Amino acid sequence: MFKLDRTSATPLYRQLYAQAKERILSGALPPGTRLPPERTLARRLGVNRTTVVNAYRELAAEGLVEGRVGHGTVVLGPPEPRGADAVRPMPWAGPTEAEEPLVADINAIIRRPGAISFAHGEMSPELYPAEAVAHLMQQVLQDPAALGYGPIAGLMPLRQAIADAMGVTADQVLILAGSQIALYLISRVLLQPGDTVLVEMPSYINTLGIFDSAGVRVVPVPVDQHGLVVDGLDELMLRYQPKLLFTLPTFHNPLGVTLTPERRRRLIQLAARHQVGIVEDDPYGPLHFTGQPVPTLKSLDPGGYVIYISSASKAVSPALRLAWIVAAPPVVERIARARGSLDFRAALLNQRVMEAFLREGLLAEHLGRLRPALKERRDLMLEALQRYMPDGVSWYVPEGGYHIWCRLPRPLTARRLLTEAGREGVAFVPGDFYGAGQMARRGLRLNFSYPRPEEIGPGIARLARAVERLLREEAVDGGEEASISGPVV
Amino acid sequence: MFKLDRTSATPLYRQLYAQAKERILSGALPPGTRLPPERTLARRLGVNRTTVVNAYRELAAEGLVEGRVGHGTVVLGPPEPRGADAVRPMPWAGPTEAEEPLVADINAIIRRPGAISFAHGEMSPELYPAEAVAHLMQQVLQDPAALGYGPIAGLMPLRQAIADAMGVTADQVLILAGSQIALYLISRVLLQPGDTVLVEMPSYINTLGIFDSAGVRVVPVPVDQHGLVVDGLDELMLRYQPKLLFTLPTFHNPLGVTLTPERRRRLIQLAARHQVGIVEDDPYGPLHFTGQPVPTLKSLDPGGYVIYISSASKAVSPALRLAWIVAAPPVVERIARARGSLDFRAALLNQRVMEAFLREGLLAEHLGRLRPALKERRDLMLEALQRYMPDGVSWYVPEGGYHIWCRLPRPLTARRLLTEAGREGVAFVPGDFYGAGQMARRGLRLNFSYPRPEEIGPGIARLARAVERLLREEAVDGGEEASISGPVV
Repeated sequence: MFKLDRTSATPLYRQLYAQAKERILSGALPPGTRLPPERTLARRLGVNRTTVVNAYRELAAEGLVEGRVGHGTVVLGPPEPRGADAVRPMPWAGPTEAEEPLVADINAIIRRPGAISFAHGEMSPELYPAEAVAHLMQQVLQDPAALGYGPIAGLMPLRQAIADAMGVTADQVLILAGSQIALYLISRVLLQPGDTVLVEMPSYINTLGIFDSAGVRVVPVPVDQHGLVVDGLDELMLRYQPKLLFTLPTFHNPLGVTLTPERRRRLIQLAARHQVGIVEDDPYGPLHFTGQPVPTLKSLDPGGYVIYISSASKAVSPALRLAWIVAAPPVVERIARARGSLDFRAALLNQRVMEAFLREGLLAEHLGRLRPALKERRDLMLEALQRYMPDGVSWYVPEGGYHIWCRLPRPLTARRLLTEAGREGVAFVPGDFYGAGQMARRGLRLNFSYPRPEEIGPGIARLARAVERLLREEAVDGGEEASISGPVV
Repeated sequence: MFKLDRTSATPLYRQLYAQAKERILSGALPPGTRLPPERTLARRLGVNRTTVVNAYRELAAEGLVEGRVGHGTVVLGPPEPRGADAVRPMPWAGPTEAEEPLVADINAIIRRPGAISFAHGEMSPELYPAEAVAHLMQQVLQDPAALGYGPIAGLMPLRQAIADAMGVTADQVLILAGSQIALYLISRVLLQPGDTVLVEMPSYINTLGIFDSAGVRVVPVPVDQHGLVVDGLDELMLRYQPKLLFTLPTFHNPLGVTLTPERRRRLIQLAARHQVGIVEDDPYGPLHFTGQPVPTLKSLDPGGYVIYISSASKAVSPALRLAWIVAAPPVVERIARARGSLDFRAALLNQRVMEAFLREGLLAEHLGRLRPALKERRDLMLEALQRYMPDGVSWYVPEGGYHIWCRLPRPLTARRLLTEAGREGVAFVPGDFYGAGQMARRGLRLNFSYPRPEEIGPGIARLARAVERLLREEAVDGGEEASISGPVV
């Protein structure tokens, strides 16, 4: 009656289900037919009883058969739609990716009235250059062609402007609709299943799931207060022969730290020695507080090892959906070609706005206002940490960007603190969201770009109360003595 | 010396290469060392000689060894970077996807001065609502928060407005940054390797490469002047048990045809009978020329079988990067969740603009101007086809959208015609770009939304001259007699 193919990739129960379904729908097994008992059919087909049970269960789930007490499994016949009411709804249920419980926890805190969020990854609205964007939209839309499709690799004047700023040629620049798309395309084009990549740990890149489906092995590289730890990298590269190394060297997310010039030089040397591509993710570079930009890895790169990514999302606005890759022409060409199958183009309108933003000097003006505003918030947060945090809590001092990384004394963990902080109405992102390990478990990413200046002090005070409460509980329980305290860098 | 693992997924030659490289770089095999001759090493390791040859070749390609006449293969030692000049550039070369030669051919024609393009997939710039968009940008940017990130599933007032227009609830609407992204996410979330999908043939969906990497089997379903051919679909569904069927039922791309009401009803019945999801792609629906919209499949769908996709790209502007999915809540939820790993969000700014566009009645105004403008161009093209095309050429009459599908008499093919048309300075997209088969090979997609009205007549006249020339050549060569002529619908 049924014929199963053991060499097929389709599971046996699916084969059995499919063949039975076909016969039921075709009328070969008319309504009322009793299917063979599970044990009998299993014996006859030489399969496990579970195989038959699963096949019958699938048929029952679709309303094709029904188990009747004393009658076994009976064919119900093909359902005939008879007007709207009689139609069975499509059973769309399937594996839904669960919402990351941590994200749900954070959102629950943020939604409460009076909550203060250090958990965001964006700026507070008044820091966006809304007037300038409105002005430029107006100007650019004088030409209705701005509402059409643009060229695949991006608007040439914008590519040229970015190339000029980076000291390269326009054929080394590719414009995309976001830096996650850039990371995704780099992975898709340059990596193959079985390849190894080195990725900073902790890093927000670990949250993107970019390497999950690519069959790529991810080897973590530690980061400390001076950025990516370069000692030991020679051995890692020898041992794993990675294709690419992913790093966010300037105002790291989540650590806020910046790779030192010495380490930058050594990293480039190692890349050249082992022929490893460096993916330099640089969304925060323009947001420096020291008066001068940190030289990019790309600017130190003599051999085309660095694939540089930046975007408008952190320094201007995420609403522009604009990012760019700066890399050796073969990389740019391979990525541009790969895009044929999915439209990852940035909107032409937004590219024209960005181009005018650069050309008219409005970006410089905007950054001239933005940097001191962010620095003020960082300083407020550092002062508050210094004032309110109990002994044993330490933090890195970022020279730019959005985040301060704060470390709890053993044995506290950031997850435990989040629950406690929620009671105080203050949220942050626990470090283990960004990677595994002790450092991540005890770390907090505190964002200072989103809260209003007057919220920062009170928010840190609330957080400090939560830390103190946990420390007291630990002391009662006999926890270890805390030791380090204050800023580390 | 070397130890190969035959159970490893890494090819033997890669293992050998990796071990040799490690020893060279670590100094265990110092510069000047002679590697064993290929045959000797192959015998010693019990592998094919090719394995050793390939491993040595890889080492040589990286400059680690060198074949010297009379000396075999000699270690060159690790390259030490000595300043910028001495660094070897990163060898990024790898498989680059070649530009589709057809696209290159079409672009070559379009770039010539005086060329007329019927090959575009967009509107001519003056048809975009640039003034309205500029006005709304201005208005929306009064609130700088419009430049921030928006919610994952989309701006609620826009979801609600779309839901109201479709007669569903807002939890059935998901906003995305483009309909290709919608198609990609639907495939990723609802399909698994080994699944089968039914796809119209010809269809622009075949050009997207969406199913290439998913390990999904694509079974073509023919389309005629009444849309997707529903006869035979019952058998196809029985035989292949597809998960999804992809269709563009209204003003099809490339055929311009519209699925009849009777076929729509039967398609929904078949979906319910076989529990197959229908992906209804509807970018052109608002662009009807008959005074009333064609009811969507979604509106006929009693059981949640239809996943409806539409976008702002064809009816408003592709620069907004806005599309939406309307589907049963479990589908919406599964797709929204799947997006965690890659940011496919539409820009909040553009969602607010679109929401105001709908709310203030500007979309209705825009469409009120756009529909007659497009209809005028279609009519000009139909008149020109009637006037200039020789006997044997036939076409479908579209009741909306962007395209007229034109068929050549045997034995002409659209590819041959494109070369000939290029000499006349006129471009179109040959049908085989959209799928295989006789129908596709003899078909032309003629776009009437991009050329200016005054270009349409002269462009078709040029095209007709090219057809006539080919027909004369065929007649001399003794081709068949052409038979059909004039519009089909």
